[in-house]
Amino acid sequence: MTEADFLAALRTLPIHPAARGLRDDAARLILAPLVVSTDTLVEGVHFLPDDPPRDVAWKLVATNLSDIAGKGARPEGILLNYPLSDDGWDRAFLEGLGEVLSACGTGLLGGDTVTLPSRAPRILTVTAFGGDTPAPPRGGAGENDALWVTGTIGDAGAGLAIAQGTPGPSALLARYRRPVPRLAEGRVLSRVAHAMMDVSDGLLIDAARMAEASGLAVEIDLAAVPLSAEYRRHSGDDRTARLQAATAGDDYELLFAMPANVRPAVAATRLGRFRRGTGLDLHEDGVAVPLPARLGYLHRLD
Amino acid sequence: MTEADFLAALRTLPIHPAARGLRDDAARLILAPLVVSTDTLVEGVHFLPDDPPRDVAWKLVATNLSDIAGKGARPEGILLNYPLSDDGWDRAFLEGLGEVLSACGTGLLGGDTVTLPSRAPRILTVTAFGGDTPAPPRGGAGENDALWVTGTIGDAGAGLAIAQGTPGPSALLARYRRPVPRLAEGRVLSRVAHAMMDVSDGLLIDAARMAEASGLAVEIDLAAVPLSAEYRRHSGDDRTARLQAATAGDDYELLFAMPANVRPAVAATRLGRFRRGTGLDLHEDGVAVPLPARLGYLHRLD
Repeated sequence: MTEADFLAALRTLPIHPAARGLRDDAARLILAPLVVSTDTLVEGVHFLPDDPPRDVAWKLVATNLSDIAGKGARPEGILLNYPLSDDGWDRAFLEGLGEVLSACGTGLLGGDTVTLPSRAPRILTVTAFGGDTPAPPRGGAGENDALWVTGTIGDAGAGLAIAQGTPGPSALLARYRRPVPRLAEGRVLSRVAHAMMDVSDGLLIDAARMAEASGLAVEIDLAAVPLSAEYRRHSGDDRTARLQAATAGDDYELLFAMPANVRPAVAATRLGRFRRGTGLDLHEDGVAVPLPARLGYLHRLD
Repeated sequence: MTEADFLAALRTLPIHPAARGLRDDAARLILAPLVVSTDTLVEGVHFLPDDPPRDVAWKLVATNLSDIAGKGARPEGILLNYPLSDDGWDRAFLEGLGEVLSACGTGLLGGDTVTLPSRAPRILTVTAFGGDTPAPPRGGAGENDALWVTGTIGDAGAGLAIAQGTPGPSALLARYRRPVPRLAEGRVLSRVAHAMMDVSDGLLIDAARMAEASGLAVEIDLAAVPLSAEYRRHSGDDRTARLQAATAGDDYELLFAMPANVRPAVAATRLGRFRRGTGLDLHEDGVAVPLPARLGYLHRLD
């Protein structure tokens, strides 16, 4: 697809007013404070070459907006850095881009298009902006705070196996391909959470990171990890299935710390608590569980 | 280089306070208004595989800050999306990154690192933020406004040929490899310019774009195009040399429109004027000059 065609198609999608119709060198944002997050996805590393391009677009934007949700911010807009390729891929990508922007109530602020040498893997970058945010830090948990998580964990990990050929239900595949950032929940929680982040690399590794950033230890009850009905039917709910869910990543749920005597105003599950010390302690109905060798994915910069 | 090593090295460079030591999921910016610009450079397309990595880092950041200069903004910080590769390349890149951040008085806000499949070309993205800006638009030129440009034109184009093997002076090569964004000039000019942009793709094509965005025609005197002493010695100053300079690109000077009776408060050269109509008219000492087939580089957005 040519740059001119791509730009013309972009102009039919939700565009932020600050983008000045994508006709200037820079977007101008007038609100503050702003949170900013950027993610790069690489074909063959973060997505599969035969993943549907509509879903790649969805996931690229949704996962970046998940960082904005983790800051309790309203999504303000995105920048897209895009490698032009064949017409079919580009058009399908644009469809998915329109879908995710509309679904998340946000718009395009600008970007850059490039042409890659032939046979180079696609590399896509999205930078997301969030406004009007109290932005609870990752490292704000206090001693005796409770650890909570929204939604269910492990669905996307099972969905990845399904995308790679394991038979399984489409609901789990959809959790992998079309994650929905917890934007509304993030805004509600940011007013009360001491610490908050999205779960992208795995529940255990992300909880350990929150504890480390807060200068505390965290205890998690494996039996409390919330599993969906589809996940239980597909993978079971024994210790192996729970450990798999808690280390699989790609959940894009919100993990947050709150005073132990407060209940969150959104659907969430209490997983454990923070205490003086360092590291992560795992138990299951009161019995200590040895930590698995791998707590989550390690290929990402947070 | 591993992500952990890369992050540790990044933390020794100028870091923006909003980056929270590169230990959180998002940077938080508290000032407004902000201008934002993003650029992606591809190995083999925008830079040569054997370009020194220190210079690649410099150019990546400097060219993006040039868009911020074009908006008359103070550079606030940058995000970096970086593909980790071999230790030597990464370390040299980091050196250049520190140099350009220090030289431009700005810092790192955050970013993302990825690993590429083997033999994939490097793709680097920088997103730059500018604050405290009146942000003159690209399309704000008025009828009878004069067109001006800072500095000299064509040096970087000659420098590219030198980088590719043509013998020539190192001063021209440096203009190609180490462009200096006109940040101070941009801040002064933004208070009086009706329209402003940086010259990245070529003087003629960028002037034509400013005219088109302003709904006007522009006339340029080829004899007025400012050439450096090094450029004249290397390429001459006849019509061919002047047309080459005016279409070569990579200048990163500021092009701006001002009322005809005002002189800018920075070193700049008056090139022509805007008038009712459309298109670009080129003349040389009063004689019409046919437009060259190629007005500049066309591989870039904006």
